[in-house]
Amino acid sequence: MFNEEFRFKQPLRWSMVGGGRGSQIGYIHRTAARRDGLFNLVAGAFDIDPERCVQFGRNIGVEESRCYADYREMFQKESQRSDGIQVVSIATPNKYHYEMVKAALEAGLHVICEKPLTFTVSEAEGLKVIAEKNNRIVGISYGYTGHQMIHQARNMIEHGELGEIRIINMQFAHGWHSEPVEETDPGTKWRVTPEIAGPSYVLGDVGTHTYYLAEVMVPNLKIKNLMCMCQSFVPSRAPLEDNAFVLMNFENGAVGNLWASCVNAGAMHDLKIRIIGSRASLEWCDEHPNQLLFEIQGEPKCILERGHSYNYNQDPAVSANRIGPGHAEGLFESWANIYHRFARSIDMAEGGQDKADENYWYPDIDAGIVGVRLIERCLESAAQGSIWVDF
Amino acid sequence: MFNEEFRFKQPLRWSMVGGGRGSQIGYIHRTAARRDGLFNLVAGAFDIDPERCVQFGRNIGVEESRCYADYREMFQKESQRSDGIQVVSIATPNKYHYEMVKAALEAGLHVICEKPLTFTVSEAEGLKVIAEKNNRIVGISYGYTGHQMIHQARNMIEHGELGEIRIINMQFAHGWHSEPVEETDPGTKWRVTPEIAGPSYVLGDVGTHTYYLAEVMVPNLKIKNLMCMCQSFVPSRAPLEDNAFVLMNFENGAVGNLWASCVNAGAMHDLKIRIIGSRASLEWCDEHPNQLLFEIQGEPKCILERGHSYNYNQDPAVSANRIGPGHAEGLFESWANIYHRFARSIDMAEGGQDKADENYWYPDIDAGIVGVRLIERCLESAAQGSIWVDF
Amino acid sequence: MFNEEFRFKQPLRWSMVGGGRGSQIGYIHRTAARRDGLFNLVAGAFDIDPERCVQFGRNIGVEESRCYADYREMFQKESQRSDGIQVVSIATPNKYHYEMVKAALEAGLHVICEKPLTFTVSEAEGLKVIAEKNNRIVGISYGYTGHQMIHQARNMIEHGELGEIRIINMQFAHGWHSEPVEETDPGTKWRVTPEIAGPSYVLGDVGTHTYYLAEVMVPNLKIKNLMCMCQSFVPSRAPLEDNAFVLMNFENGAVGNLWASCVNAGAMHDLKIRIIGSRASLEWCDEHPNQLLFEIQGEPKCILERGHSYNYNQDPAVSANRIGPGHAEGLFESWANIYHRFARSIDMAEGGQDKADENYWYPDIDAGIVGVRLIERCLESAAQGSIWVDF
Amino acid sequence: MFNEEFRFKQPLRWSMVGGGRGSQIGYIHRTAARRDGLFNLVAGAFDIDPERCVQFGRNIGVEESRCYADYREMFQKESQRSDGIQVVSIATPNKYHYEMVKAALEAGLHVICEKPLTFTVSEAEGLKVIAEKNNRIVGISYGYTGHQMIHQARNMIEHGELGEIRIINMQFAHGWHSEPVEETDPGTKWRVTPEIAGPSYVLGDVGTHTYYLAEVMVPNLKIKNLMCMCQSFVPSRAPLEDNAFVLMNFENGAVGNLWASCVNAGAMHDLKIRIIGSRASLEWCDEHPNQLLFEIQGEPKCILERGHSYNYNQDPAVSANRIGPGHAEGLFESWANIYHRFARSIDMAEGGQDKADENYWYPDIDAGIVGVRLIERCLESAAQGSIWVDF
Repeated sequence: MFNEEFRFKQPLRWSMVGGGRGSQIGYIHRTAARRDGLFNLVAGAFDIDPERCVQFGRNIGVEESRCYADYREMFQKESQRSDGIQVVSIATPNKYHYEMVKAALEAGLHVICEKPLTFTVSEAEGLKVIAEKNNRIVGISYGYTGHQMIHQARNMIEHGELGEIRIINMQFAHGWHSEPVEETDPGTKWRVTPEIAGPSYVLGDVGTHTYYLAEVMVPNLKIKNLMCMCQSFVPSRAPLEDNAFVLMNFENGAVGNLWASCVNAGAMHDLKIRIIGSRASLEWCDEHPNQLLFEIQGEPKCILERGHSYNYNQDPAVSANRIGPGHAEGLFESWANIYHRFARSIDMAEGGQDKADENYWYPDIDAGIVGVRLIERCLESAAQGSIWVDF
Repeated sequence: MFNEEFRFKQPLRWSMVGGGRGSQIGYIHRTAARRDGLFNLVAGAFDIDPERCVQFGRNIGVEESRCYADYREMFQKESQRSDGIQVVSIATPNKYHYEMVKAALEAGLHVICEKPLTFTVSEAEGLKVIAEKNNRIVGISYGYTGHQMIHQARNMIEHGELGEIRIINMQFAHGWHSEPVEETDPGTKWRVTPEIAGPSYVLGDVGTHTYYLAEVMVPNLKIKNLMCMCQSFVPSRAPLEDNAFVLMNFENGAVGNLWASCVNAGAMHDLKIRIIGSRASLEWCDEHPNQLLFEIQGEPKCILERGHSYNYNQDPAVSANRIGPGHAEGLFESWANIYHRFARSIDMAEGGQDKADENYWYPDIDAGIVGVRLIERCLESAAQGSIWVDF
Repeated sequence: MFNEEFRFKQPLRWSMVGGGRGSQIGYIHRTAARRDGLFNLVAGAFDIDPERCVQFGRNIGVEESRCYADYREMFQKESQRSDGIQVVSIATPNKYHYEMVKAALEAGLHVICEKPLTFTVSEAEGLKVIAEKNNRIVGISYGYTGHQMIHQARNMIEHGELGEIRIINMQFAHGWHSEPVEETDPGTKWRVTPEIAGPSYVLGDVGTHTYYLAEVMVPNLKIKNLMCMCQSFVPSRAPLEDNAFVLMNFENGAVGNLWASCVNAGAMHDLKIRIIGSRASLEWCDEHPNQLLFEIQGEPKCILERGHSYNYNQDPAVSANRIGPGHAEGLFESWANIYHRFARSIDMAEGGQDKADENYWYPDIDAGIVGVRLIERCLESAAQGSIWVDF
Repeated sequence: MFNEEFRFKQPLRWSMVGGGRGSQIGYIHRTAARRDGLFNLVAGAFDIDPERCVQFGRNIGVEESRCYADYREMFQKESQRSDGIQVVSIATPNKYHYEMVKAALEAGLHVICEKPLTFTVSEAEGLKVIAEKNNRIVGISYGYTGHQMIHQARNMIEHGELGEIRIINMQFAHGWHSEPVEETDPGTKWRVTPEIAGPSYVLGDVGTHTYYLAEVMVPNLKIKNLMCMCQSFVPSRAPLEDNAFVLMNFENGAVGNLWASCVNAGAMHDLKIRIIGSRASLEWCDEHPNQLLFEIQGEPKCILERGHSYNYNQDPAVSANRIGPGHAEGLFESWANIYHRFARSIDMAEGGQDKADENYWYPDIDAGIVGVRLIERCLESAAQGSIWVDF
């Protein structure tokens, strides 16, 4: 059961860039960060409209004087305070990620950033250099990876329950943009505008989520080469893709297929992952996150439930239980678990008492870099007629 | 989308009795109450062990001086402070509910109490008199009723989508106590001890949940008469029942059947409700709370998803959305929604600006009373050989 | 795998009463009986319209001279032939079952009859006396009991996989007659006409199916007493019920609940059965008959698949496989399996070489009698205000 | 409802090559062909062991003198009888398909053949020339295409319910051969032996099934180009593949992905197809063949059930109903429906009275050719490093 009494001496002094009024992603960042009392929201550049920024910040409990219209101003002013911010979460359109993360790191802040981290791999790698130099962490908000059954799967795979890994099916294919909804919906508009979204739409927006789930579930996964075919079924979206299929070879001989889409008409999310081994398979879907399908060849299909102490159950998955099995945990708990990991990683970087076990992980800057590389290589393949390219 | 900026001028000053270290129910009360910034936990009698109480309270952010070992002391001392508590949540074993709610109301506090509210109907009705006299609200933590699809169902039924209501299937039948786990698990032990749990185990512990869901989904539901058969499959639990079947007639000519159990081996929760009308049926299960099955006779089965703006969708259900459809919301969101309703009800009682629409509801003291009456009448029926008794 | 080469020296010479043009039940009887080459349809009184009877019989391959308009004539004429019929299946409205079975037995025929066997228990018991005297078998077409997963369940229960049986949930609750479709549909009309259908509608038409499934799955099940509440939600159906709830105690201390309905709006069939033991539960639904849910308390839910050779798998279930696991078998295979059992029982009664193992069963006249008794006792309870009556 | 009285003046005189004792595929051919009384099994070359052939044939009702050890002898001798065979079904390992189909056509017989029809496209096209010259039909036993929901889907797509078709997901990925079971199982052994199975294992054995389902569901589907990657996860199977991914472009701008596998550990069949249009999607899975998922973007998910007369329902799907909705039909009904189509096609070729509507189809020789071409092109792509090849 989750230990509610685990606290830092002082909660981390936390701020946000973006995520203001009407932002769903902003709400989930705040809910997750506050859940365990490890972050305290003390400042924010929530909105580029100064008045709305202040109004919003005040309404959600941030002092008016610490509501900034400009993120640079925030970094600068806060750095002059003894109680200035330590961490910033960036929840803006993709275009700003690179400059904001860079500025934050240079201001000595830890950063939590939305994916994709940057437009190019070289930018992302540049950020890593700065982060390492400054001993700051960069976390990527791969919010699905906090679900306990993902950890359960990781444990089972590490303990050899699947045998040798052979095939990974990855999919995040929703249908919400089957029609050109961007014509009336600004929240979609920027995602299909290359100047703001970057070189990719669905590969970056949803494809990286499912790929990173695979990395968490199957430690030490490395892509060897891949090929990608992309479409823009709504033609006005070109050159950005609204559908993509990727095939890949992994270094260890396994193969993978990944489907990213926003035109899978009628599907809610269809974020699914299936890991197939020589002995058994595991399958998980984000719409029913408390269950994990475990299929051993020749035996009855099993449905594992969150919170149960099956044989396979290892410590980390169970310890993240916030409520007993049978009850539905949801995406907010998953994000809270990831923010919990961010907090502990930051605390460790800051020299806090916490000390991670050797298997400790969180979606770090390498997770951010590999996501950008995935996009870059896929588009490179697609641009050349869907040929195979090394990773 | 949930309006995160809705706040009171001051959060309600809130406290708890019970729910200390290791208490799952305590954790969910706190998580729910804090979620929307409407409650501020300022005091608590979390534990009867004074030292553990202080330690726990401090760890979760309550001032040491406001951590009380005794609830009477808390009510008394807090009443002398200008910033004393306004509301208390009671999360103790059943035995203490009556005296604590009574004391709280008499101390001028609003109360949120676990079900069953009391051991007898006359006690529960007595509390109502005091509450009304003092203009205090009593909320019952029927935490499942905050799920949006329950509200969706309520709206659809009010709009006549099912036709005339004919049959209600109610069920909460888990299997966690198929064996006498109480021999080693204190959390189960008190539930099967009549002095602490009261006259009933599963009817009170789980049966009342599913019955109250029916009341929310089908407004103006009134039981006319009922019959009940009970068993103690683990014999040492007698006279408390670990399984019960109830049949009932409603005033409007509909009929209902209710199954409450803790010996449904292998089932996680199996909290399910199906409302059957002359035209269509609705079915909901707490383990997959974001879906609502809608079956119109002669048409394809439909699966309604949380957050969608279908034709049927009415305002209240959608406005409680905390995240877009497809994403999994869970029990914590449901509880938070109910606590939100408690907060607004309290604020209105206190003369705040909030004003509920005519269809506004929350699990109030009448919900508490009807639950106790259901238990009482069921046991009366069972004791006489499962005969029919008026409600 | 099913042994297609198992044949009798001569197929049984088989006939039908009823089941002519447009009869769905007639088609399934014929398909099932012919499936394994054990029955040869040589005569029939398919229709009371002589011309249509002949036409229909000829079209499906029966000699014109052996198509009879009157069942008595058929029994009489066929008895004079050296190659006359040995077996007759009766697929007429309920009203005729008693007289036809009686006449058939008296004519020395084996009989396969639709349920309910008769209108009263005393009639059914009278038939048993005649059948025993003449050494003829009476089979009841409880066609769902041929599904392999029912046998799988029986085997598992016999081997103690569930522990001690505690609770049986039985349900057959479709929604096809939510409205008074009988006003335009003759196939429904007779079922709600007491003179033709007998004293009950849904208890007899669907309730007996699910109860008999319980008897097959849990050998030696005996009802001790029961209570029943009935409704006629479509008022013109009174006194026949279109919905009924039954609670029952079994001799061995287990309890059961049964729901029979034709007004479960939007449901296709909802023929479901769940057997709950002290250790585990089994659940089966006819709409997905190749799967059996097996839930051991504290372990992952398991989905058993038809045809797999799991540990639990015993011979009979597997030997009835007609195609490998994964492939969908359906209701026709279930009926064929039951007709196969009828054939072998008849052959044994006739002194054939076949010899059943000690665990051999088929839906015999006792199954018919218990179904009629169930109806009779339920109506007796309901008529007296839903009191408890001995079985 | 299926018209049981539809018969030919004389059933087609039918024979088999292969499919003898212990053959599952033989059993399903016979069950399907006999179901509607349109085929009469009068001869067979069931087994290459003469004695076993006669024994088996006799046991299932074929005259001893018409049980042949050699198919050439059968074709020759039967052609000399006035009541000789008209049709032959070929259920042997792949290696023999070409020579047997050729010999049968040259003997003036109609042929029903297992897939893959031949080892090469040129062989398959050669057979088409002969078939056309002799006015004989060649049917391919794509037995899944007889499921009513496939026809339902076809009707809906023709009526524009999905909008413009964009994406087709095709999958047949079971796990039965995750381990080298061929070491002990002869039925698997020949499938992984190139001399007998031909150039492919899973692409031919399962991949062609799901591709042909797509062709039936989406009329006028034509592949433009494709790429394929193959693996032999059980190394001893090389050069035959036990897993393959295929990506394809269709002429009309849609794209497809196909996964064929026998190493999807723990999966029973996982034969699934999803057709995605600009407005809605349809999804079907063979393990639950009576349901069809219909998802219109922005509306509730719908589950269509076999046999219902929804708006979308067109004649052909409903007319193939053998039993009312809610009841489970299975694979045997699907095969019987396909054999029914074979029979009517043969009868028409023979100048019978039957006359197909313009939308009539059955899995004909073109279906056979396209399957072989799919295999050929996939292997061509894979052999060159998974490059794109024209179709």
